[in-house]
Amino acid sequence: MSLQTVLDTIDQSLPEATDRLLDLLRIPSISTDPAFKGDCDRAADWLVEDLKTIGFEAAKRPTPGHPMVVAHAGTEGPHILFYGHYDVQPVDPLNLWHREPFDPQIEDTAKGRVIRGRGSADDKGQLMTFIEACRAWKAVHGTLPGRITIFLEGEEESGSPSLIPFMRAHAEELRSDIALICDTGMFDARTPAIVTMLRGLAKVELTVHAANKDLHSGMFGGPAMNPIRVLTKILGGLHDDKGRVTVPGFYDDVEELPDAIRQQWQSLPFDHAGFLGDVDLSVPAGEVDRTPLEQIWSRPTAEINGIWGGYTGAGFKTVLPAEAHAKISFRLVSKMDPDKINAAFQSWFEAQLPADCTVEFKDVNGSPASVMEIGDPAFEKARAALSEEWGTEAAYVGAGGSIPIAGYFKEILGMDAMLIGFGRDDDQMHSPNEKYDMESFHKGIRSWARVLEKLT
Amino acid sequence: MSLQTVLDTIDQSLPEATDRLLDLLRIPSISTDPAFKGDCDRAADWLVEDLKTIGFEAAKRPTPGHPMVVAHAGTEGPHILFYGHYDVQPVDPLNLWHREPFDPQIEDTAKGRVIRGRGSADDKGQLMTFIEACRAWKAVHGTLPGRITIFLEGEEESGSPSLIPFMRAHAEELRSDIALICDTGMFDARTPAIVTMLRGLAKVELTVHAANKDLHSGMFGGPAMNPIRVLTKILGGLHDDKGRVTVPGFYDDVEELPDAIRQQWQSLPFDHAGFLGDVDLSVPAGEVDRTPLEQIWSRPTAEINGIWGGYTGAGFKTVLPAEAHAKISFRLVSKMDPDKINAAFQSWFEAQLPADCTVEFKDVNGSPASVMEIGDPAFEKARAALSEEWGTEAAYVGAGGSIPIAGYFKEILGMDAMLIGFGRDDDQMHSPNEKYDMESFHKGIRSWARVLEKLT
Repeated sequence: MSLQTVLDTIDQSLPEATDRLLDLLRIPSISTDPAFKGDCDRAADWLVEDLKTIGFEAAKRPTPGHPMVVAHAGTEGPHILFYGHYDVQPVDPLNLWHREPFDPQIEDTAKGRVIRGRGSADDKGQLMTFIEACRAWKAVHGTLPGRITIFLEGEEESGSPSLIPFMRAHAEELRSDIALICDTGMFDARTPAIVTMLRGLAKVELTVHAANKDLHSGMFGGPAMNPIRVLTKILGGLHDDKGRVTVPGFYDDVEELPDAIRQQWQSLPFDHAGFLGDVDLSVPAGEVDRTPLEQIWSRPTAEINGIWGGYTGAGFKTVLPAEAHAKISFRLVSKMDPDKINAAFQSWFEAQLPADCTVEFKDVNGSPASVMEIGDPAFEKARAALSEEWGTEAAYVGAGGSIPIAGYFKEILGMDAMLIGFGRDDDQMHSPNEKYDMESFHKGIRSWARVLEKLT
Repeated sequence: MSLQTVLDTIDQSLPEATDRLLDLLRIPSISTDPAFKGDCDRAADWLVEDLKTIGFEAAKRPTPGHPMVVAHAGTEGPHILFYGHYDVQPVDPLNLWHREPFDPQIEDTAKGRVIRGRGSADDKGQLMTFIEACRAWKAVHGTLPGRITIFLEGEEESGSPSLIPFMRAHAEELRSDIALICDTGMFDARTPAIVTMLRGLAKVELTVHAANKDLHSGMFGGPAMNPIRVLTKILGGLHDDKGRVTVPGFYDDVEELPDAIRQQWQSLPFDHAGFLGDVDLSVPAGEVDRTPLEQIWSRPTAEINGIWGGYTGAGFKTVLPAEAHAKISFRLVSKMDPDKINAAFQSWFEAQLPADCTVEFKDVNGSPASVMEIGDPAFEKARAALSEEWGTEAAYVGAGGSIPIAGYFKEILGMDAMLIGFGRDDDQMHSPNEKYDMESFHKGIRSWARVLEKLT
């Protein structure tokens, strides 16, 4: 039977596929918060059961954290590994959601039909595009194409602490001809993309300590050092007036973009004004001598992702707190080493601490940037499949987000990884009111059917 | 009957007096948090009932916020007004309390017996010293001395929004020969004090807005402005390297201390090293050319009392938040005008905002500093009474905290106010594990009996 029959099956069964996704979205699998441990487990169980129904030998595999889901099918032909993650981001600030984050629904919007709910785009909707393509293929052909391993993680949003040990321990089982990763976006609403450059991430949480207890600002205000003052003073100097990060050595391992890549990017129809305009911003906040596209795809950043200290409730409390806190992350590019960056930041911070203050660092970790080798013919085959489905030339692009798994596949399993995804810029991943376009879901499933046909 | 009989009665009935205080401390009358509105009301009812038992005509008097308690006794002789407040500070961070804040108990510590619980020192324990002195006087004499008005507020810890309107509306009822205010401390553990200079307070809460929603730092990190970065950048410049506040015009209305007062202060046995050493600090954080005592009593400050933004829960979230927040307060001295200071701060802040960011200010209010006229003979009479009770010369001192009521008595009712209190530096007012020394409570009651005897 033909690819067309598979595509037709996908079209006809879209309502059922959507219902399955909604089921999965109802499970609040927030990996970073221990309160949701049972829900992460439940999401893994749901996926195992679903994969079994389409002929996979699927199992939940324990780790010291949340379980992996590993599923295998087929015994001959090219061996393809598919990676996705079933965990999701926290939902706060909850008051900015228009509906319950874990009560997903289909909504008709000015820009088309969307699936609304936490995890719809990142990454449950995306991973289900591949599973649904497999389901349709199986329904038409009676078997799955080639050999397929599905490898789903439950800790992607909390730093993937169990991933490397698990990959090391099960390297033989996981090693394949190529890895497909569905956790990225389209170049724009019409142009599919394969990501070949990904930024890395280094992160750290810190606490500044001053007095041994909270103090009354009437009694102690003046002589007693306020750790929030120290924190704002130091972090307020993290960027200079040109948008550059001031930590010494921060740019040492940042390589300039090859001219060929820069020219390709410059030819992309990237709407610099619209990109920021969509979120009510207009002036790029990064390095002043770089375009926004370069800032996102090829330049490192330092961001304060959270800050807190003192009294933050209703009303007022004239307190000088004993401590103040921040969560900081760095997006890394080219050869930047996360350990080296974290160490440089910590030294920079400590050197500025006044007498009487100390700092504690915790949750220090990170992963380097990834640059894919696009010489493998699979890249051009996949690009052709995507171009056919979307009726427009698919692009090789960079991505600002960190998907450490791509680097690990290369480093630990010696495999190339191909990052193909159908997310859009306005999906509000990690934000309130996350959504996934129905078109992304539908044509995403169809795209994978085409990719599988070309690769197997 | 003699004063000695009243003092003996106080000594004998201390256990019952302590039990009454513990009862009052069990009511969580946190005025700043609407969740405790009913408890504030309950504390007011408790006081009305108690005052009635010692012969006061007492009533709970409504305001748009928490009620006032007003009680009157006597028809002839000097008219004394006593002020205190029955509301207390919030209790967070709750995890730093060694026991439930509203389950008070008597504890024996290395420094003596203490009453532990939120409000024990600020201000329930202090206001009850006066009420217990009245009770003992009544028990011995059958009547209260002179004419006494007791005026208790329930919004002192949340900016006293109803106080001025209430005083204006009931000026005739409240106007007396002198006001006694019990919300201050001893100079040191052995030396009683009358406060003649009090710092004022200006405060404001602000929110910096950037993008129209929370953003993913992978997708937007670089080009999108992070409001936490803006907040730390601006607030990090609130103090210069000499500990001075950088807001233009901040010091315009700050007068230098008269030489006579500075000399008196310099002769006080203030343990500068010990003051900071007790809270594990060593280097004064205020203006470098001022002693810690001057910094607390006679110099203005700017403090960040709270800061929050982005993800502050367990784990990590690589978010660029849409907004970031801070609560700022200023301690004011001499002729500084709270409205002028708040306006100067807001202009200073707004002038530094980058394009694409806006700031909202709310809860902007304040009260000026107070300087008492100690020419009134009542001051020397009270100082003599205190010196007799404590066996050491009582001191005229300044105070770092803001007790706006003192200024209002002068401004609205044309009365002088005398601030006498028995708190100690280590009482942990506004902090976890607040306590009030049993000696403060006991000798505080005795002190008021002596003061009443001299003034009536």
